Amino acid sequence: MLIVGELINSSRSQIKEAIEKRGDVFIKQLARDQFEAGANYVDVNAGTFYGREPEKLEWLVEVVQQEVNCPLCIDSPNPDALRRALEKHQGEALINSVTAEEKRYKEIVPLVKEYGARVIALTIDESGIPDNREKRIKIAEQLVERLVADGVNEDRIYIDPLVEPLSTKDENGLIALETINYIAGKDWEVHTICGLSNISFGLPGRKFINHAFAAMAVASGLDSAILNPLDKHLLGLLKAGVALTNKDPYCKGYLTAYRKGLFK
Amino acid sequence: MLIVGELINSSRSQIKEAIEKRGDVFIKQLARDQFEAGANYVDVNAGTFYGREPEKLEWLVEVVQQEVNCPLCIDSPNPDALRRALEKHQGEALINSVTAEEKRYKEIVPLVKEYGARVIALTIDESGIPDNREKRIKIAEQLVERLVADGVNEDRIYIDPLVEPLSTKDENGLIALETINYIAGKDWEVHTICGLSNISFGLPGRKFINHAFAAMAVASGLDSAILNPLDKHLLGLLKAGVALTNKDPYCKGYLTAYRKGLFK
Repeated sequence: MLIVGELINSSRSQIKEAIEKRGDVFIKQLARDQFEAGANYVDVNAGTFYGREPEKLEWLVEVVQQEVNCPLCIDSPNPDALRRALEKHQGEALINSVTAEEKRYKEIVPLVKEYGARVIALTIDESGIPDNREKRIKIAEQLVERLVADGVNEDRIYIDPLVEPLSTKDENGLIALETINYIAGKDWEVHTICGLSNISFGLPGRKFINHAFAAMAVASGLDSAILNPLDKHLLGLLKAGVALTNKDPYCKGYLTAYRKGLFK
Repeated sequence: MLIVGELINSSRSQIKEAIEKRGDVFIKQLARDQFEAGANYVDVNAGTFYGREPEKLEWLVEVVQQEVNCPLCIDSPNPDALRRALEKHQGEALINSVTAEEKRYKEIVPLVKEYGARVIALTIDESGIPDNREKRIKIAEQLVERLVADGVNEDRIYIDPLVEPLSTKDENGLIALETINYIAGKDWEVHTICGLSNISFGLPGRKFINHAFAAMAVASGLDSAILNPLDKHLLGLLKAGVALTNKDPYCKGYLTAYRKGLFK
């Protein structure tokens, strides 16, 4: 299970303030905490800094990688911001994200190739987010075909089926789970990823929705997730889920993580 | 989601002692706690009292139903114990359990019919517990066919696919989940049920395994479970799981349970 730590995001007020004041101590601590909690990538997002996103994202990349020896998930639709961030980034970045929208695809895929990055591909096209599983799958398949034709290997592509809140439509849990199940079950090397916490937006007791959805998504074949790695219960559920789906021989990964105290 | 509270079981030392000393206050409190936590049935088991099981099980039924207005899951393979318990039981009992073993089937099914009970059917035959999904499904289908022929309606049958510990075989999680998925997906009225906590036997951090398995089982279609209803996190995951699989319009059941404080 590949884990992307989601906490360094300027849509969170504490993060926005820290970025504004160049408060690197707070940002570094949050990067270290996520890394030590088991994050394989640390997400950096400065999307709320309209007009100043490129400089802010570049600063985040530098500050976080001064602290942790860990690749980053560079989270922006803005090609200028991505380029400045990728220029400073050490190692193999994960770009978040490309879509099937023509302009965005053409701006971002060259960066994926130039910097040897991995890429998250959202199931969105010019018409927006489809309201059903079939269209999302179709967009995913078209995106993968085009990315491969453009020189991006299947195993460097992470399809995000876009999790929408259960509170807005009763089908939203199943649409995400069934899309994951289909993509993960295909005979190809493509990964699946999603941001877990969006599912519970607007409902009370969000952790119960998030936790149940996480375990269900793993059962559906999800192999990567964007989440809060400081939620130790969630981490434990994911490690348990991998073992329960017979992808962790002798529960070794589960037992190692347990002994390290990654969950308790 | 039908919930059977599992805590009044003589394999637990405190319960055994209470039954031995006829400590009805403790038993009653545990019955009330489970009922108030959301149990639809309270399980009663006196299986460790070899030779004295009938009288002990009868006593448990009387004591528990003096305290809670709730049907019981009468948990014994012993027809004498079942008969004495059913004789005292008020309401519609759930008998736990019948199997495809000829002797057990012939002893227990007449009691199911005589007392108008519901029944849990385990996927066990004369050869024991099959080590694969296909044989468990076959036993389940044969059991249902025979029970229906013998006059037990499909919707009164609860197939238990027998959850074995993940620690003894890496496939055990998937065997249970896939058996549930098949049984629950068939075009019939038969229910699925299982004891959740057996999956984590022998592993540390059991709650993570139990919780992940519970959510996955709901995603597979499980509609009933034998569990510890005092584990509020587990209860929350189950309620969330039902909503996430689009079986709880407008999340009404989830929201009602949340507001009642059944989980938090």
